[in-house]
Amino acid sequence: MLAEIITIGDEILIGQIVDTNSAWMAKQLNLIGVSVKQITSVSDEEQHILDALAQAETRADIILITGGLGPTKDDITKLTLAKYFNMGFRNDAGTLEIVKSIFEKYKRPLLDINIKQADVPDGCEVILNKNGTAPCMWFEERGKIFVSMPGVPYEMMYLMDDEILPRIKRQFKLPSIVHKTILTSNIGESFLAKEIEEIEDSLPAHIKLAYLPKMGQVRLRLSAIGEDEAPLKTEVEIYAKQIIEKVEKFVVIDDDIPLEQAILNFMKEKGLTLSTAESCTGGYIAHLITQHPGCSSVYWGGAVAYAYELKESVLGVKENTLTKYGAVSEETVTEMAEGALKNFKTDYSIAVSGIAGPDGGTEDKPVGTVWIAVANQQKTIAKVFNFSNKRLQNIERSAASALTMLLNLLKES
Amino acid sequence: MLAEIITIGDEILIGQIVDTNSAWMAKQLNLIGVSVKQITSVSDEEQHILDALAQAETRADIILITGGLGPTKDDITKLTLAKYFNMGFRNDAGTLEIVKSIFEKYKRPLLDINIKQADVPDGCEVILNKNGTAPCMWFEERGKIFVSMPGVPYEMMYLMDDEILPRIKRQFKLPSIVHKTILTSNIGESFLAKEIEEIEDSLPAHIKLAYLPKMGQVRLRLSAIGEDEAPLKTEVEIYAKQIIEKVEKFVVIDDDIPLEQAILNFMKEKGLTLSTAESCTGGYIAHLITQHPGCSSVYWGGAVAYAYELKESVLGVKENTLTKYGAVSEETVTEMAEGALKNFKTDYSIAVSGIAGPDGGTEDKPVGTVWIAVANQQKTIAKVFNFSNKRLQNIERSAASALTMLLNLLKES
Repeated sequence: MLAEIITIGDEILIGQIVDTNSAWMAKQLNLIGVSVKQITSVSDEEQHILDALAQAETRADIILITGGLGPTKDDITKLTLAKYFNMGFRNDAGTLEIVKSIFEKYKRPLLDINIKQADVPDGCEVILNKNGTAPCMWFEERGKIFVSMPGVPYEMMYLMDDEILPRIKRQFKLPSIVHKTILTSNIGESFLAKEIEEIEDSLPAHIKLAYLPKMGQVRLRLSAIGEDEAPLKTEVEIYAKQIIEKVEKFVVIDDDIPLEQAILNFMKEKGLTLSTAESCTGGYIAHLITQHPGCSSVYWGGAVAYAYELKESVLGVKENTLTKYGAVSEETVTEMAEGALKNFKTDYSIAVSGIAGPDGGTEDKPVGTVWIAVANQQKTIAKVFNFSNKRLQNIERSAASALTMLLNLLKES
Repeated sequence: MLAEIITIGDEILIGQIVDTNSAWMAKQLNLIGVSVKQITSVSDEEQHILDALAQAETRADIILITGGLGPTKDDITKLTLAKYFNMGFRNDAGTLEIVKSIFEKYKRPLLDINIKQADVPDGCEVILNKNGTAPCMWFEERGKIFVSMPGVPYEMMYLMDDEILPRIKRQFKLPSIVHKTILTSNIGESFLAKEIEEIEDSLPAHIKLAYLPKMGQVRLRLSAIGEDEAPLKTEVEIYAKQIIEKVEKFVVIDDDIPLEQAILNFMKEKGLTLSTAESCTGGYIAHLITQHPGCSSVYWGGAVAYAYELKESVLGVKENTLTKYGAVSEETVTEMAEGALKNFKTDYSIAVSGIAGPDGGTEDKPVGTVWIAVANQQKTIAKVFNFSNKRLQNIERSAASALTMLLNLLKES
């Protein structure tokens, strides 16, 4: 069962927004056994949308379309779908009611263009969108399914979760797709490949191995497709186990979860608490951690200590340390980590101080020099890294390295 | 001049990673006058890549391909390009040297598969990739240009900035593309459309208007295409001015920069300093601010005060306030903002305390209830918001609302 995703809207093609919808949709489809064949972003232009629909129809069984459903003139998805299927329009009563209730809730008068938001191609089935004024439309034509959804992420997500995915599951007998991911660090992609060459060569045709390098780490992903989930899972686990045994010392997590989630799971189980003391990562580590529901039982908080004054007053770094060794030094980052432990009263802490760039580098400490420390009551480990000259990359790599150091410290304790 | 972007790799199609490369590339292409017609993500599968290349060739003048250039077996872009153009292979001396030097730098032995990374289809021109082992390949065939680049973001970005974009500019006479963005808040998309209907209807054919709603705000984007940049800019500015005058009270920024960048620019110019006191946003506001180079002259830092203990010890919130009114209250968020001002010694502060969810809601304070305060020495403004039941969305909307409140306070001061 193959799906395609078409996103409609110039904002993606001019790079004004990043298409996060498609990745989310692809992940959900995969989980229920639907493979995504292609993701296509096209402009708000009739002929281009028509062509994309026609091409997708030749490749996929179900075509999921997002975007272009707003009330304004630049949005033409509904008109184009009606043209594609040679349909007229009807005003959908259920949608109109939702539109009216939303406008009542915000005490805004209903405009003509809002009433027109309830117009839909007359051959589609409307799936009510409880979170917005744009209807979701389900077409079954020429043996294929086309679904048009709003591009607003949370409206689309709700519709997929509550309506579209359950319908697809009911309507089709789907295969199982099983993924297993292993995160490694401190080993390059080609060395990893050489280490596990024999295992890779022994994989059956329905199991694929992929290498995903990112921020100095490599994720290995085994993907299997088959009829029944349970034996498939067992099979994948066997190969995963072989790989893990072979490259054990480089394995950080044997699950497809982010580093910080692995840390939260581990610490929650042991009843441990964590704080952060960030300079150059500027709150990014705290943000990664606090994205996850339930983090508050582990994570107590921390400081973003950009200025020297805050490093001293909030984290207790000595003025002398800052003037003698500088903010980006083993001494300062150690005091930051130990200050966080003490002032925030947690079992573990992370501290980062570096030169994210693009300015602020010196000959001794060029842009990309980052000191990271992790600490518990027994010990503090500090390391220096030399990343790149790109600010965001330095922030992300610092965070990934700090979290890896913490996970390793947790494991050895 | 039309371009298409093809990304190759299963990781996007199974939703394991979000395709951020394409948006970045599209933005850079747009800036030099190249319009992106389509963005297509395809799998690591030969026939699918061949089809995508053939279709892109019918629509675009230049086809930019990323991904699938690693040394491992799942990466088949080079083989497929050679097949597409019916070419043999040669080992590229320059690339081999770079591969060797990278392996020497990291003191790793060179493997056979690494030497093969210097193999390229023999009809292409190699553009040396100084940041990685995968070569960048430039093909000119049948009057079209095809460029194959690695998918690793920073390698691709460097190649685009230093090599590909300058070559495209040299080789073609490009039109000018001018965008102008206006960020509005507190007004719905359709009301905005009604307010500026006459201006929208008066736009000439070469200027388009788009509405981009996001997190309770609407961005308006005027896009113009023409020969000369200067008159085009003037023309766009005239329409932008008309729109701004018509909906003045809803305009937050009249530029395509993020809210926090507008705040940093404003505060830097006036020599003002800022600190943050975050609970439910968990460092996200700090992260937004510290993404921007040069923020340290304005932003001193702040606290991520998840636990009650940190709200008290770091921000000076009274124990009594927390027990009497709760952490999510006007009283607490006010003390957080004023505590940040005092303890971090800044001119302005932002404080946020809310229930991001999915758990922790009560009847009185359901998930999505967020108190935000902004303060300076003269006054503190606190407001309550009721967002959604989605954690990440609540974090993002809280940050956008907090930054909007701060910008408004800055403007009135």
